[in-house]
Amino acid sequence: MALAYRPSHADATYDFKYGVRAVEGGGRSSARETIGRVAAGAVAKKLLKIQSATEVLAYVSRVHGVELPDDVVDHEKLTIEQIESNIVRCPDPVIAEEMIKAIDMVRLRGDSVGGVITCIARNVPRGLGSPVFDKLEAELAKGLMSLPATKGFEIGSGFSGSKMTGSEHNDEFYIDDSGNVRTRTNRSGGIQGGISNGETIVMRVAFKPTSTITTLQKTVTREGHETEFRARGRHDPCVVPRAVPMVEAMVALVLADQLLQHHAQCQLLRFDTNLPPANGEKGSENVTLEEAATRR
Amino acid sequence: MALAYRPSHADATYDFKYGVRAVEGGGRSSARETIGRVAAGAVAKKLLKIQSATEVLAYVSRVHGVELPDDVVDHEKLTIEQIESNIVRCPDPVIAEEMIKAIDMVRLRGDSVGGVITCIARNVPRGLGSPVFDKLEAELAKGLMSLPATKGFEIGSGFSGSKMTGSEHNDEFYIDDSGNVRTRTNRSGGIQGGISNGETIVMRVAFKPTSTITTLQKTVTREGHETEFRARGRHDPCVVPRAVPMVEAMVALVLADQLLQHHAQCQLLRFDTNLPPANGEKGSENVTLEEAATRR
Amino acid sequence: MALAYRPSHADATYDFKYGVRAVEGGGRSSARETIGRVAAGAVAKKLLKIQSATEVLAYVSRVHGVELPDDVVDHEKLTIEQIESNIVRCPDPVIAEEMIKAIDMVRLRGDSVGGVITCIARNVPRGLGSPVFDKLEAELAKGLMSLPATKGFEIGSGFSGSKMTGSEHNDEFYIDDSGNVRTRTNRSGGIQGGISNGETIVMRVAFKPTSTITTLQKTVTREGHETEFRARGRHDPCVVPRAVPMVEAMVALVLADQLLQHHAQCQLLRFDTNLPPANGEKGSENVTLEEAATRR
Amino acid sequence: MALAYRPSHADATYDFKYGVRAVEGGGRSSARETIGRVAAGAVAKKLLKIQSATEVLAYVSRVHGVELPDDVVDHEKLTIEQIESNIVRCPDPVIAEEMIKAIDMVRLRGDSVGGVITCIARNVPRGLGSPVFDKLEAELAKGLMSLPATKGFEIGSGFSGSKMTGSEHNDEFYIDDSGNVRTRTNRSGGIQGGISNGETIVMRVAFKPTSTITTLQKTVTREGHETEFRARGRHDPCVVPRAVPMVEAMVALVLADQLLQHHAQCQLLRFDTNLPPANGEKGSENVTLEEAATRR
Repeated sequence: MALAYRPSHADATYDFKYGVRAVEGGGRSSARETIGRVAAGAVAKKLLKIQSATEVLAYVSRVHGVELPDDVVDHEKLTIEQIESNIVRCPDPVIAEEMIKAIDMVRLRGDSVGGVITCIARNVPRGLGSPVFDKLEAELAKGLMSLPATKGFEIGSGFSGSKMTGSEHNDEFYIDDSGNVRTRTNRSGGIQGGISNGETIVMRVAFKPTSTITTLQKTVTREGHETEFRARGRHDPCVVPRAVPMVEAMVALVLADQLLQHHAQCQLLRFDTNLPPANGEKGSENVTLEEAATRR
Repeated sequence: MALAYRPSHADATYDFKYGVRAVEGGGRSSARETIGRVAAGAVAKKLLKIQSATEVLAYVSRVHGVELPDDVVDHEKLTIEQIESNIVRCPDPVIAEEMIKAIDMVRLRGDSVGGVITCIARNVPRGLGSPVFDKLEAELAKGLMSLPATKGFEIGSGFSGSKMTGSEHNDEFYIDDSGNVRTRTNRSGGIQGGISNGETIVMRVAFKPTSTITTLQKTVTREGHETEFRARGRHDPCVVPRAVPMVEAMVALVLADQLLQHHAQCQLLRFDTNLPPANGEKGSENVTLEEAATRR
Repeated sequence: MALAYRPSHADATYDFKYGVRAVEGGGRSSARETIGRVAAGAVAKKLLKIQSATEVLAYVSRVHGVELPDDVVDHEKLTIEQIESNIVRCPDPVIAEEMIKAIDMVRLRGDSVGGVITCIARNVPRGLGSPVFDKLEAELAKGLMSLPATKGFEIGSGFSGSKMTGSEHNDEFYIDDSGNVRTRTNRSGGIQGGISNGETIVMRVAFKPTSTITTLQKTVTREGHETEFRARGRHDPCVVPRAVPMVEAMVALVLADQLLQHHAQCQLLRFDTNLPPANGEKGSENVTLEEAATRR
Repeated sequence: MALAYRPSHADATYDFKYGVRAVEGGGRSSARETIGRVAAGAVAKKLLKIQSATEVLAYVSRVHGVELPDDVVDHEKLTIEQIESNIVRCPDPVIAEEMIKAIDMVRLRGDSVGGVITCIARNVPRGLGSPVFDKLEAELAKGLMSLPATKGFEIGSGFSGSKMTGSEHNDEFYIDDSGNVRTRTNRSGGIQGGISNGETIVMRVAFKPTSTITTLQKTVTREGHETEFRARGRHDPCVVPRAVPMVEAMVALVLADQLLQHHAQCQLLRFDTNLPPANGEKGSENVTLEEAATRR
């Protein structure tokens, strides 16, 4: 490891950029770096829970060829106990068993596998996010794609939504029993045009297989000589179950930031922002800035 | 449109957040907003071309059920002429024809379809990006997920990479004829651990079908009454071909920013950053900061 | 002006940096640029007034050799009417008359003079700002030193405070009739250690004399030849009275930003943050994060 | 200290904002916090020295009533050895002796004094900074006013410049022996309109007397009771000499940041930015973006 670059590992690009190598334990590119994110995420989760009863939960929905179908999990009733009931953090015990077998199979031959994590955020207040560059889905995508080994991000219908027609994909609005504007379906994944709509936010994140494997691979040395390389030591055959808390943490951090910003920007001062009525008469609730100032 | 929220359109969430509606032409949530991005992207492309011969090209790789297989396009030889040779901006003329038919089919019945855009960046200098929060793939994901109607982002192998083993997925290194460290495959998509490795950057972006369709849909009014809604006027049955320049612009803007940052951070001052040799003798090229200062 | 650099004007440095000249009307370095700041400042003032009854007022306290002594103006009773009662925006009519004369004297011979603006902010909520890099006085200093022609900034005692002893300078605390912690003196200028203490914030900003004068001056051309230069056209002999709204605007913008940040950071969630009592018994009002979460 | 707020100390405002007290050693508001700034400043100084031979030097120019006149120090020849030749860091040995006496006098009676630090930056490349909000003097003011105990900032002529006429204040340009555009005087302090002009940058920073003194003072407790307070322990009677490295560090950090930004923004790509010649003929050195791209 000290001499040759590990294929598909960050040690080569880090050396290209900074001219520095830190090879033991993966150095700065080890997923151990995320410990600070998980710690901060715990605070963010608390804040979200207290302020808006928002909950963030993630689980493994695919390991290699073993997939948990979308409709098996009820996102409104999912609990952390279901997720933590097995070591692959998959809420379905049967699928979980298959995932464990899939990992064991590659582990024995020193190989590794990738997978997918699904993450939901329930009770997200509507209005979080912003409409242009800093769309909520853009912030979430950045947060999640900053985790090691991620290769893809989906919100709501994701790539499968690109195969649908508008009449199939659109989420129709209705008024629920409490008088709230809701949608019957949730292909939007809880966000429309960069701003949360109050439905559950649903995301999926793809993780590649761990790059460090004990299979013999061709590579090059720092000095530019071709060579072969076989990793030693203990390496995860599948990082996906261990990435579940990282995913939750990043989502909680993004949502907590957005909650604070939204509060300062839109809720500290409440003015009536209705457009003037068409007939020109003044609505009874309209309060102009001038009047609000005078009333003090 | 002035009274009811359009299903899956941003006008509802914008109203939830700001209490303001701007209904004509989609208001601020129209994709017309991206004109400024495309203009700025043209400058960024110029800068990239002059500084590092970097080229950014995007094309439509799926419309509804019509998909352009990955191996049909040679990313090293792809030209803008191929892409611009038809109105759906797909470099394969046969597939393009099928895409046009697919769009026509939904257009006639007032419906819409989604699709996927593939974007590549060639001759990207190695070393762009950073290793933790602001990984290059994270910046690209944010940039692209900030475009209207996007639902997913992939880099390199993307979600399909999550179905592979490490021995299948890893990109083995070799030394090319010019003595450069290269990889034989490119499942990493040109980025490893947040930093570009000099291979072509390959991304895919999923777009949902346009939300504004002429089909009758259930929705609610601003005042909270359930109603039905049918859009009028001219609406795109498929925005994907028109989103190609937006995708190129956002990628070019991200890469240009990263190029400037990389230059200031890592190339303005060039120190030898090799770790001291194991045997303690000083390499002939080693220049300490102290010495460099003295030599001035 | 199109050929030669104006002494002490920004046109030379702008050309050094960007290689571009815009000579008419001072180009981008004209104080006309601040119109956007003043417009935004009007919104910020409104927000401050409504949210916390905070008022920002500035006035001219020196023109050339004519100075308004500190103790003449009662900062608790100062009104905008007093300030706007004369064209130099000095609340003392006698001193104002002298200032007008001082300006007239240099105006007649085509010269210019500098001066000082004092700015106060009343009813600033305590707690705005932060303790290390983004101290409130640092943000105010940056905002005010970003105005054209500024050469100095003071908060509270300013440079004269550097001539005092600690026993003379310290602001002793007392409890006022409403039970609030107040200070009897205000040499701190309303800020202690980066955070507002609820007293009136008092600042002073020094403006140099306008650089564009009709006196003949030595200068050089863009091509590097020495020459002489005499400005024509209408130029302000003293910009200080016209800078009063700019100063108010920048202070209001900084305070409004800080107010929003403070609200999001410290007031959205109110936990009891008292240190545990020395004797170990739990105070009746103590609410832990855990308990607060449970109570929901 | 654990019960009562120290007059003019940050412990009260910190408690107002965060509800937390950390009283030992001044807690987070101790100037010990600046150790990280001084360490980072050492790296910034190295970078500045290597890249542009820029040097940053600060010295004490006033303690209480003892002032070092401006014209005593030759800023072009000043050395760090002169500054470090005595414990008050004043380059004039006679004045230094008076400063030491002034400090001793207050030290004996448990009081404290303030002072002024002058800081210069030599060989600053011209072009650093920007023309509107992030003017170089604004960035320097923020950096320096973020240091503990600062009450004022001046650049060039500072507050005394506000007493001058334009014809007295303007810095006339000339061409030096190397053909460079220079100014004969430097009332601008090395910056015009937010951008460095290549002359020595000259700043002055006012420090208030240390707030912690052993004199008996009136104050209040956290619980809102009036009381009297006398500090114990070892406290600096004058922090100004010890603040010299802090001032140098903050100036070096600001300049290093600006140098990196300037390089990326204006020097990575060098286009000819001359306005087109009046007579329409093309200058021999003009290179358009188009042509530059073609030449590659």
